[in-house]
This record gives sequence, structure tokens and C-alpha cells, in this order.
Amino acid sequence: MSKQGTTHLHIPGGFTWSSATAGIKASGRPDVAFAEARLGASAAAVFTRNRVVAAPVEVGREHLAATEGRVRAVLVNAGNANCATGKPGLKAARDTCAALGKALEAAPEFVVPSSTGIIGVALPVKKLIGAIPEVVTERSSGEGAVRAFADAILTTDTVPKIASAAIRADGEKITVLGIAKGSGMIHPNLATMLVYIFTDVDASPRELQEHLDAAVATSFNAMSVDGDTSTNDTVLLLASGTSRVKLKPGKAAKAFGEALQSVCQSLAEQIVRDGEGARHLIRLKIEQARDMDEARVIARSIANSPLVKTAWAGCDPNWGRILSSVGKSGVDVDASKVHIFFGRQQVCRKGMAHPFNEREAHKFLQQPEYEIRVQLGRGRSALTFLTCDLTADYVRINADYST
Amino acid sequence: MSKQGTTHLHIPGGFTWSSATAGIKASGRPDVAFAEARLGASAAAVFTRNRVVAAPVEVGREHLAATEGRVRAVLVNAGNANCATGKPGLKAARDTCAALGKALEAAPEFVVPSSTGIIGVALPVKKLIGAIPEVVTERSSGEGAVRAFADAILTTDTVPKIASAAIRADGEKITVLGIAKGSGMIHPNLATMLVYIFTDVDASPRELQEHLDAAVATSFNAMSVDGDTSTNDTVLLLASGTSRVKLKPGKAAKAFGEALQSVCQSLAEQIVRDGEGARHLIRLKIEQARDMDEARVIARSIANSPLVKTAWAGCDPNWGRILSSVGKSGVDVDASKVHIFFGRQQVCRKGMAHPFNEREAHKFLQQPEYEIRVQLGRGRSALTFLTCDLTADYVRINADYST
Repeated sequence: MSKQGTTHLHIPGGFTWSSATAGIKASGRPDVAFAEARLGASAAAVFTRNRVVAAPVEVGREHLAATEGRVRAVLVNAGNANCATGKPGLKAARDTCAALGKALEAAPEFVVPSSTGIIGVALPVKKLIGAIPEVVTERSSGEGAVRAFADAILTTDTVPKIASAAIRADGEKITVLGIAKGSGMIHPNLATMLVYIFTDVDASPRELQEHLDAAVATSFNAMSVDGDTSTNDTVLLLASGTSRVKLKPGKAAKAFGEALQSVCQSLAEQIVRDGEGARHLIRLKIEQARDMDEARVIARSIANSPLVKTAWAGCDPNWGRILSSVGKSGVDVDASKVHIFFGRQQVCRKGMAHPFNEREAHKFLQQPEYEIRVQLGRGRSALTFLTCDLTADYVRINADYST
Repeated sequence: MSKQGTTHLHIPGGFTWSSATAGIKASGRPDVAFAEARLGASAAAVFTRNRVVAAPVEVGREHLAATEGRVRAVLVNAGNANCATGKPGLKAARDTCAALGKALEAAPEFVVPSSTGIIGVALPVKKLIGAIPEVVTERSSGEGAVRAFADAILTTDTVPKIASAAIRADGEKITVLGIAKGSGMIHPNLATMLVYIFTDVDASPRELQEHLDAAVATSFNAMSVDGDTSTNDTVLLLASGTSRVKLKPGKAAKAFGEALQSVCQSLAEQIVRDGEGARHLIRLKIEQARDMDEARVIARSIANSPLVKTAWAGCDPNWGRILSSVGKSGVDVDASKVHIFFGRQQVCRKGMAHPFNEREAHKFLQQPEYEIRVQLGRGRSALTFLTCDLTADYVRINADYST
């Protein structure tokens, strides 16, 4: 159902995309991305929970509130986060939306701005506004335009991240296309996960928000590269309605929910796999939790432990560090009920060592992707959390500094 | 007032110390440490908050409850944590206390056991009990015995950690001597901070607990190497009473509190300075917080961010990552009131970039020790939190694994 990367993409109707090079990235690579719903789209969004919020996130929230969830266009720049830039930063974001709105003959409130890149440096707003004529002229509904958008939003990512799904519901086809950037927390002052999802269902902003919240919970909120959250994190879902399939509760809603979830999970995997310096993708299954919240708390406690992450980097079957991380999570776990498995091999039983073949376990942990299961003996909730190891390369990438 | 390391130590009366080599450490270095208060001591303790708790911690808690805070002896082994060892682990800890109690003609409940080392492997209890005659015979009140105790409790620490203070109160001398181990979370499966503090004040367990809680809050609970807490962390305070200075509220209590605090802070500094792979000791001052709790939450959010810690490793004046970590702490901070200083140099003003000399800031961050101040504009509470950088060496130390 879901397709990624260089394979053929499913592209929903009602949208166009384009990109330009405004000279905001020092590398001289494309750094402005544009997406438009010419007849407008219903929108839902999830923004960062960080209390320090970048100007485009503030302005985006305002605009979605002002239009009650209607969006005409998205303008993204990479290379500068427009964060910790105060009132001038807010003005820069608003000026950009006004300029794009003018070019599209739409009110500025129908534009959602996004920025990613260095924090604390004024947004080069003239360069960004200067790129508007080009992105408007070049907009197209083709696969090349989608890929150009995906390229232009990247910062330290090593690969673009795209996933799409097409499904049949009520005899009609629904398409979901997602584009993301993010590779954990990133090179000097860069950060941020940005996700844009385009679909052709016919839905209200409220219906979309419900589906988006559910999909984010099992994808972008069930992953961690280094535990840091950014000031600019944004997930935006836009629905053009061109499929004419309405999101009524029932078969269509269920099919759409599954398609959205599969696209989000694929993008989350692509982000974790591209984690800085990461050499292993770990599917951390927390089982027998009392509820999803405690499963997530325990998953984060394990996935964000430097000791656990460095053991993974060394392919070290060190289940003691995992057990200790369960214990420090704050959840009132009874250690004598905890089981831990590396793939099929049990390594900890009732909170104690379970005899296992260490050489096999070491070999298992050398795989680029594997599953670790932690059973808590508390209830019936289960969560799969995506994470990666912490390598010396991560430190090198993030400690790199030259005056 | 406070003395450390290789300088002359202040040694309280009423105690003896010794060590032995039982063969529990693979290195063949001393691995059993013994301390005794021949006439008994009042005791207070702070144990790990990790829900996964090692057998000696459970037994130690039981014993302190049974004797209502009276202790005759402490027996520590390094090389094996006796954690995740189930009921056999509890029996091993109890058998050890019984054997030592027998040798001292005391009830087993007057013995507090401690273990540090690998998790999930059965404690070699015969080796440990076999060392008891030697430690009892060799016990002494001299400085050499104190240093032997300090050496025997080490695991991956690169240096022993000792601090002492002597003060005058009510015309009498009070002495406080602290011995610690811990260098962040440590080499395969090893972990644990152990701290033993000996004093000659005459105090009830309850009075001691109040003083200990206050001292721990500004020392061991105000530091972080990698954010991980161990299953065996223990701080034990023993008071022999031989100074005959009673801890009544007033001058003596105040003087003792300050001495205890200075010893704890010195030990905390020694632990952070010995953090695995650490090259910089950072004094993180959180100022203008509403209360100490939120100051500690924000300090931890900064000190445990891999992005902040790697920037420190690179001597990178990256204040944006610090600001972002304040934002993700969960405390409802208004970013536009936040100021950040590297030493005397302000780098962030009202949540925005403040012009600073980057070369000077880079030079400042190359120092082995420095201070970073974060002002929140919320209140009058301030906290100094000790932490260190995250280097590629940390990853190498903790990822190292050989089958």
C-alpha cells in the first residue's frame, strides 16, 4: 500500500508543488519549497510542544485559527529557523505570507509559513520574498515537483523522505502523500522535524485533526533519535477534497485512517533511519503496559538513555541497562514481572538474567534493524517505538565547531 | 575548610576502616571495603529512586528500619551490583550481613551492605564472606585505612574521591569525612554512585536525615553526568557522637550543616569531573526561577540534552540549544524573558541573540571548568547544577563490547 523513496508516487489531486534557490542555505542548494491548493484545502496541524517556539509556528497557528482551518499555500525555507528572533522574526514571517498572498491573490492568513535551520539569526526575508515569483511560476502537479519540494526542505538529512498510499473506499480512490525532513537533532543550531501531508479526501478541519492526532501518536510521537524536541517541529495535513470521498465514520474513514497512519509510520522510520550517525534502527516494543501513556514514558526512558544507546552502538546485549531504564522511568513497575527479549531470544526473565547465547545475541544486535521487546506484566497495552543507537559519529557531527 | 584528594584528611573519632581483595573485580584490585563504628552510630540514608532496586539497597533499608537508624558496620563490594538477581540476591546480601554480624558479635541488622558492579550476575557470596576475617583484623582509624576504603569501592573511576572538613562549634571540634565512588554511568553494566559520610557529632537519626536531605539537594541531586540513575545509588551518613557536640538547633547545627554541605559538594564535583570521557566541568547556574524544583527540572533538561552536551564538547557557543532545552523542560517559561551568559559574556537577551565576541566565547568554552548562567525572569530561586560534556570518548567507553 505504501510506497517510498525513488519508487512511483501516488499524488493526490488539487495540489501543486515547486522549489527555488534563494541563497539562504550556505551550500547553495535549493532552500525554498512551495505547495498550493488552488481551490483551498481543509487543514489540521500538530506543532512542537517546546515552550520556545519559532516565529513561523506562532504565525502558522494564528493563521489556521483565523481561517478556521483553511489553507491555500505553504511556504517553507531551509537554512534559517527564524527562531529566537523576537518581534522582527514575527514581522518577517508575516511579511513573507503577505507577499505570497499578494502573488496568489489570497489573504495572507491562508498561507502557512515554515522555517528550519539556524536559531537566533535574522531570517533573510528579502531573499525569501525574492523567490516567490519563481515558485509560483514553476508550480506543477507532477512527481518531479513533489521531489523538488522534498529536496528543498532538507537540512542535514542525507536523503529526502517521501511516502504515499492509494486506497479504494466506497468505490473511489483516496490518495495520501507525505513529505518530511528531520534526522534527529541536527548540525549546529539546526533542528526540526517538518512533515507535510497532502490528501484528496473531502473532510472538515475537525475530522482531519482527529485522524492526524491518532496517526501522530503511533508515528512521530513514538520515535526518538536523541530525545530533543525542536522549536519548529510541525506536522501539517491538507485535504483538497478532489476525490469527493467524504470522511464519514465507517469504511471510508477507517481506510483513510489506515492510509494516513501507514504514511506517517513510513516517514517516521525514514527519519529515525537517517538519525545522525545512527547505524541501527531499533523497534522497541513495550508490551503489557497499563495504558499507552505509560508505554510511551517507558519507551522514551529506554530510548533516551545514553547508556542504552551506546550499548546498542557496541552491539552489546546489555539488558541490565534496559531494565534500569525501565526502573528510572517514574512508572511504578514491579521489576520481578519484567521480561526482555532481543528478537526471539529472551535475555531477562522476571527481572533476572535468563540464560542466553551471548554470541548469537551479539550477532543479532549487529543487524541494521532489529526488534527489542520489553514485557511489563501490568496490562494489555502495547506500543512500538522507533529509535536508534548513539555513536561516536553523532558526537562528532554535533560537536563539530569551527570559528 | 574542606580538603580533598591527596592532602591531609580530617578523620572523625569512633570509626575504623579497612579493605581486602576478594577476587570479585576481574582486575584483581581491592574490591571489599569495611567501615565500623565500634560503639555504634546514628544513621541517615538516601537511596536511589530507581524502581529497579538492587538487593543490598532493599536489605539496607530493612536493616535501618529494624534498628531505627543505628548502624555498627558497612560492608561494600565492588565488581558485582547484586542487582536483578531475585531472591537468591536478597539471600546473598542477608547471608553477608549475618556473617559480618557474627564476626563483630552484633545482630545482622546492624550491618548495611552495598554492592556496585555488573548487573544480573549472581554475587560471589563465598568470596565476599571469605574476606570478612581480613577486613575485621585489618581495621584501623588511620588515614591509610580511609584511603584503602576509598580505593576498594571504585569501579571505572579514574581517581578515588574523598573530602573532609573540620569546624569549631560551641568550643568543640566537629569533623566530617566523605568517601565516594561514581563517574557517571559506567562501563558494561556498572553504574552506581556510592557515598559514605562519617562524622563525630552527637545526633539522632532524625536530625541527621534532615541535614542529609538538605545537603543532597544541593550536591548529588544537583549534578548529572549522563542523566541515568542507577539501581544501587546510596548516600549513607553515620554519626559516632564522639565529639560530644549535640546537634541542637542553633550555632552547632548550622556549622555542621555547612560542613556537611561542603563535603557533599566537593564529592559531587569530584564525581562529575571524573565523568566518563568528560573534558569540561560546567557549573550551570539557573537563576530567577520560581522555586528550586523548577530550577532543577530546567537544569536537568539542559544538562541531559545530547545536543547541548555535544556542543560543550566542541566548545561551541551554541546558546540556541540551551534556550531550546529550557523550552522543552515542561516548565512554562516565557522565552522573551530568558537571558543566557557564558561567564561574564551575555549571549542571549530576552530570548534573542545578544551580540557577543564569538572567538572569546569559544576560548571561554575551551577552559576545563566554567560557568553558564540562565536567568528565567520568573522569581528569586537559584540553583547551581554540576554537569559535564558528552564526548566521543564517552560513547567509546560505553559502547565497548568484546565477545
